[in-house]
Amino acid sequence: MATTTAVEQQRERTTSSDTMRALVFRGPQRIGIERVPLPRPGVGEAVIRITLTTICGTDLHILKGEYPVRPGLVIGHEPVGVIYELGAGVTGYSVGERVLVGAITPCGQCADCLTGHWSQCGGPIGGWKFGNTINGAQAEYLLVPNAQANLAKIPDELSDEQVVLLADIASTGISAAESAHLKLGDTVAVFAQGPIGLCATAGARLKGASLIIGVESDPVRAAMSRKMGADVVLDFTKTDVVEAIRRLTGGRGVDVAIEALGTQPTFENALRVLKAGGTLSSLGVYSGKLSVPVEPFAAGLGDHKIVTTLCPGGKERMRVLMELVRHGRLDLKPLLTHTFPLDRITEAYELFGNRRDNVIKVAIRP
Amino acid sequence: MATTTAVEQQRERTTSSDTMRALVFRGPQRIGIERVPLPRPGVGEAVIRITLTTICGTDLHILKGEYPVRPGLVIGHEPVGVIYELGAGVTGYSVGERVLVGAITPCGQCADCLTGHWSQCGGPIGGWKFGNTINGAQAEYLLVPNAQANLAKIPDELSDEQVVLLADIASTGISAAESAHLKLGDTVAVFAQGPIGLCATAGARLKGASLIIGVESDPVRAAMSRKMGADVVLDFTKTDVVEAIRRLTGGRGVDVAIEALGTQPTFENALRVLKAGGTLSSLGVYSGKLSVPVEPFAAGLGDHKIVTTLCPGGKERMRVLMELVRHGRLDLKPLLTHTFPLDRITEAYELFGNRRDNVIKVAIRP
Amino acid sequence: MATTTAVEQQRERTTSSDTMRALVFRGPQRIGIERVPLPRPGVGEAVIRITLTTICGTDLHILKGEYPVRPGLVIGHEPVGVIYELGAGVTGYSVGERVLVGAITPCGQCADCLTGHWSQCGGPIGGWKFGNTINGAQAEYLLVPNAQANLAKIPDELSDEQVVLLADIASTGISAAESAHLKLGDTVAVFAQGPIGLCATAGARLKGASLIIGVESDPVRAAMSRKMGADVVLDFTKTDVVEAIRRLTGGRGVDVAIEALGTQPTFENALRVLKAGGTLSSLGVYSGKLSVPVEPFAAGLGDHKIVTTLCPGGKERMRVLMELVRHGRLDLKPLLTHTFPLDRITEAYELFGNRRDNVIKVAIRP
Amino acid sequence: MATTTAVEQQRERTTSSDTMRALVFRGPQRIGIERVPLPRPGVGEAVIRITLTTICGTDLHILKGEYPVRPGLVIGHEPVGVIYELGAGVTGYSVGERVLVGAITPCGQCADCLTGHWSQCGGPIGGWKFGNTINGAQAEYLLVPNAQANLAKIPDELSDEQVVLLADIASTGISAAESAHLKLGDTVAVFAQGPIGLCATAGARLKGASLIIGVESDPVRAAMSRKMGADVVLDFTKTDVVEAIRRLTGGRGVDVAIEALGTQPTFENALRVLKAGGTLSSLGVYSGKLSVPVEPFAAGLGDHKIVTTLCPGGKERMRVLMELVRHGRLDLKPLLTHTFPLDRITEAYELFGNRRDNVIKVAIRP
Repeated sequence: MATTTAVEQQRERTTSSDTMRALVFRGPQRIGIERVPLPRPGVGEAVIRITLTTICGTDLHILKGEYPVRPGLVIGHEPVGVIYELGAGVTGYSVGERVLVGAITPCGQCADCLTGHWSQCGGPIGGWKFGNTINGAQAEYLLVPNAQANLAKIPDELSDEQVVLLADIASTGISAAESAHLKLGDTVAVFAQGPIGLCATAGARLKGASLIIGVESDPVRAAMSRKMGADVVLDFTKTDVVEAIRRLTGGRGVDVAIEALGTQPTFENALRVLKAGGTLSSLGVYSGKLSVPVEPFAAGLGDHKIVTTLCPGGKERMRVLMELVRHGRLDLKPLLTHTFPLDRITEAYELFGNRRDNVIKVAIRP
Repeated sequence: MATTTAVEQQRERTTSSDTMRALVFRGPQRIGIERVPLPRPGVGEAVIRITLTTICGTDLHILKGEYPVRPGLVIGHEPVGVIYELGAGVTGYSVGERVLVGAITPCGQCADCLTGHWSQCGGPIGGWKFGNTINGAQAEYLLVPNAQANLAKIPDELSDEQVVLLADIASTGISAAESAHLKLGDTVAVFAQGPIGLCATAGARLKGASLIIGVESDPVRAAMSRKMGADVVLDFTKTDVVEAIRRLTGGRGVDVAIEALGTQPTFENALRVLKAGGTLSSLGVYSGKLSVPVEPFAAGLGDHKIVTTLCPGGKERMRVLMELVRHGRLDLKPLLTHTFPLDRITEAYELFGNRRDNVIKVAIRP
Repeated sequence: MATTTAVEQQRERTTSSDTMRALVFRGPQRIGIERVPLPRPGVGEAVIRITLTTICGTDLHILKGEYPVRPGLVIGHEPVGVIYELGAGVTGYSVGERVLVGAITPCGQCADCLTGHWSQCGGPIGGWKFGNTINGAQAEYLLVPNAQANLAKIPDELSDEQVVLLADIASTGISAAESAHLKLGDTVAVFAQGPIGLCATAGARLKGASLIIGVESDPVRAAMSRKMGADVVLDFTKTDVVEAIRRLTGGRGVDVAIEALGTQPTFENALRVLKAGGTLSSLGVYSGKLSVPVEPFAAGLGDHKIVTTLCPGGKERMRVLMELVRHGRLDLKPLLTHTFPLDRITEAYELFGNRRDNVIKVAIRP
Repeated sequence: MATTTAVEQQRERTTSSDTMRALVFRGPQRIGIERVPLPRPGVGEAVIRITLTTICGTDLHILKGEYPVRPGLVIGHEPVGVIYELGAGVTGYSVGERVLVGAITPCGQCADCLTGHWSQCGGPIGGWKFGNTINGAQAEYLLVPNAQANLAKIPDELSDEQVVLLADIASTGISAAESAHLKLGDTVAVFAQGPIGLCATAGARLKGASLIIGVESDPVRAAMSRKMGADVVLDFTKTDVVEAIRRLTGGRGVDVAIEALGTQPTFENALRVLKAGGTLSSLGVYSGKLSVPVEPFAAGLGDHKIVTTLCPGGKERMRVLMELVRHGRLDLKPLLTHTFPLDRITEAYELFGNRRDNVIKVAIRP
């Protein structure tokens, strides 16, 4: 028909509605499923139909009002889905293809991206848009900005469950060892074995660390830590962690200390167990004050490095991480301990927020 | 007694003789066990009693006259032993301690070493001394130069067999991925799966490659390649390797191509399967002419890198590699397929040189 | 009027014509000014009115048929101009703004770009589009693909003449020292002091080399080499360059050898003067066969690196290079020895191709 | 005579005494010239006759009791001299040769040195021995440990004055840009323009920074800052430095911020002006508490790096820095504003400590 444009023909025919269900943040401790407008893609954008997503620890911070986002925002940033509609200028994709989209969606074309700082696209933390500055993934549909740079096709042999955690926590966790330029045979301590820390452990193992020491008091997480690659897991409630790590490393200290919680004590201990010339790789989100203890910092003379990393994103990052899964190098499914339908996502928040039932990560299926 | 000096008291009392048995190179195709003077350590040196050593492919080149060394030299460069005597100025060691010494024994104090080029100690290939410029390890005793920098104590829980291959082939093989700065999830092709290539495969796996493709026609080595970490092994006598690797990588080519043989065809194919921006990591020893095919080299415009690496050495390299073994990351024992006593080393040369009996590496026990 | 769209309003009102003058390649030795359609920008594209461009050595190769491009193509790839029309989806720019566009115009959004291989955008040499795969800059107007990633605004205080060479030869030349990871105080030899080599000399100086040795027989270029930063310039027709460089470096050889011509003798000499552990940084475009002499290559055991670099591009690269000019670190104007109007560009080709009148670079003003 | 050994024959015949004059630290605020035993070299050691040395800011900290060293120690760590006596095992040197010795004297043979952490030789800050853990350079003679790795011959064309500052402050200052991996065209802010900061400014210039901003209130040091390479010098007593640097960098912030004082405000401001993805390169010696302000740190999500560097040392470092001086890239003589004989060194301490008479650095001539 004459009224059917080329762009409309690129749309998957699954809904006649103009609205969708989504989890909307209305203010601290106020979230709920609402009907909101179904997005339409502009130039360079795409809309995907979400098939699997998750709740992230950051979402809990948002819920508590600890990380400010504007009321009315749909939150969530770990999307797996199917291409529903493609905007003008997006090429090489077809409606209906399964895609993974990273939590970080760089444009690829700004000064930051063109110097390799994709996560800082357009300025500090600018690469993180979903559920932060634009609507996020805990919804039936998701508008993907800079789609050309961010739609990563999922190989047929991989399930949604196998890849969903790559969008954020695995990409983030694994980046700790990468940003630290961990060398073959380096010793590593990973402080906290929550989802990010567990992935940091897996990343240290993948990059070829020799001795990997996890620090965690929760026995379920400690067991998972060993599964993800830790040789030893220290319970900081029972052990002097600094002294134990010194001893385990023959007095040297570790080459790389990974902070995966975002607190003063873990940051400080990470520095205390670090050898001169070593690297503290920080993944934590800090609030309030952060102090550098001067003595383990060798008063600034220890050739220490402190590096921070925001989750790497973009479709190529997603593709490479999926290849690691596809070739059996990385298996994150054990971390997906629970699944909820989108309609019951507030229950999932409650479970996840209170760390009940040995939850590690919760999957949400719209 | 007045004639007993401090230095002499540091000597292990195992022999009253002043000579030892050693394999002496007398010229092309002329080697044999001879009695030669037992070495005494000078300032900064040590003598170790060899407990395990091996024959290296390079020794075969020497035997054939393809790599020139002076007649009269004791050859071999992969020593495990026990400290027998310590020269002046060597501290922190005791006679009787088990040590691994790398094939490369840098001084640590020359311009090359002080800029991190330890293998090129004092000039091109200068770090390789054993069985090249000074007497080597296929003997009962071995003089270790720059002992302070080169005696790596062996942890009690590791056997000689577990560590002997770290001295050269594992350090060399693994360095291919390191020198290439292989990134997590990179795809890799390793050309030739002899001892070095097998260790290169293990190294690529350790550093976090996703897809690893071995190239090898010998079925025993192909099987060992899979054991060391290859996902696919291509037989170049039956397959168009370049086309197959292109296909396996979705047309991209590999991120890292490792040359582990030292021939024109393998070098050339390594370049042909390499993606633009990728790295050819060369371990081979080339003789005669080496040609760079201009087309796969993108006429010099493909942002390709070609890196070569001589075996990294020094006691810290040995320590770190031993840590990888100790923590179960690396197991090289399957490569040690045969063992001979020193007295029968010429038989071992014959077996190894002719690749009989599915030999991969031969251990020699004095 | 109802027929005036928003996009059309973004167009500079300088022409009522639909055609423009441009230099068209019709086959080997066949170029000429023709009238061709004036381009219109699609999504993500822009059209600029060229105010200054140049002829590059690569254009001479194209003219001679040595580098194949399709007949009918407008050639040239070093554009300075004014934004004439902006396609949909290009933001932050206005018609009339002065811009520099690199010879390499990466999309920023493909797998290659998203791993930092911008010059290899979409595949080998894929970043080089102007005058290679799409129409180029020796014309009145130029269609800029991936405009968002490639339009670099020119600071008011910089003239067209000050920045035009940054588009290609300066970006390429300077990249030699960057790709080599030249360290402070490194010694450098630059083989050939044509436009690229002169910029490589400037780049080595900028990066902090200590001793810089140019190799060039042309006395005018030798003088310019000193002006750009060389401490010594060797005339290979009168001096044994390899021996002289060995002597100048106290027998060590250089840390970095830059090949800026693309011939077997310069490549080979670059390797011969390189120290073990050093880097040969190649900028040349090679044709036919390229041989690696095995002896100076230490048979593959010298820890040598050979790196090749295609001109880095993208708007951020251009911005940074312009900052170097703006702050007085880099002055390329002396290299612009001649200027011609576009109408007389074939004369300019003749002068430049025959290296008459001490020409180094020719500017073309439409 | 039978009692003359070979080692003794290597001794320069300039004194028949067994003692020498030296500045001895006796406790906080208690220093003075005393006669102390003239050192004799052991294995691998050398004694040099000091011809020029300096007072460092660190010496002032020691004098005030802020950096603890044992009473009785000879302090000072920037030695230029002439080889007076060589211990056993030191080769390639002759008595009477002029040498520069770095403040940091790595052994080259421990685990730290063999992984490139020369300044952390043997453990945290272990490379710094002179005037810290062993007798220092403010004396007539100096025992040099690990002499083979630390005696850097001075080219004839360079005077003592041209090289003495390379031993510490230039090596330290310049390392800031090196440790930050400053890239060509990066923007840099250097907080504080004391001797170290001035050298950091020179280093940023040498490495190819575009815009260099010094921060300093002292007008003499501000003028020297411009001489060493700063484009702009901001007086923090008159200007909001953070706001000014933001403005000077077009709102981006700097790529590299160098902290060269060791105080909370400078550290904090360095972080405040740093762009996301940028590097804070810290040279300061911190005492008490150091706080990381969380907001400019982007709560740990800004991909910021904080790197600290202890002065790089070893003879090769000294050689390379001398090459930079020899080739006219670096001129530190303007920083040597005063000279005193050793006998009047306490006057020099007073002048330097109180920053009287526009002093920047004081040379001491025994």
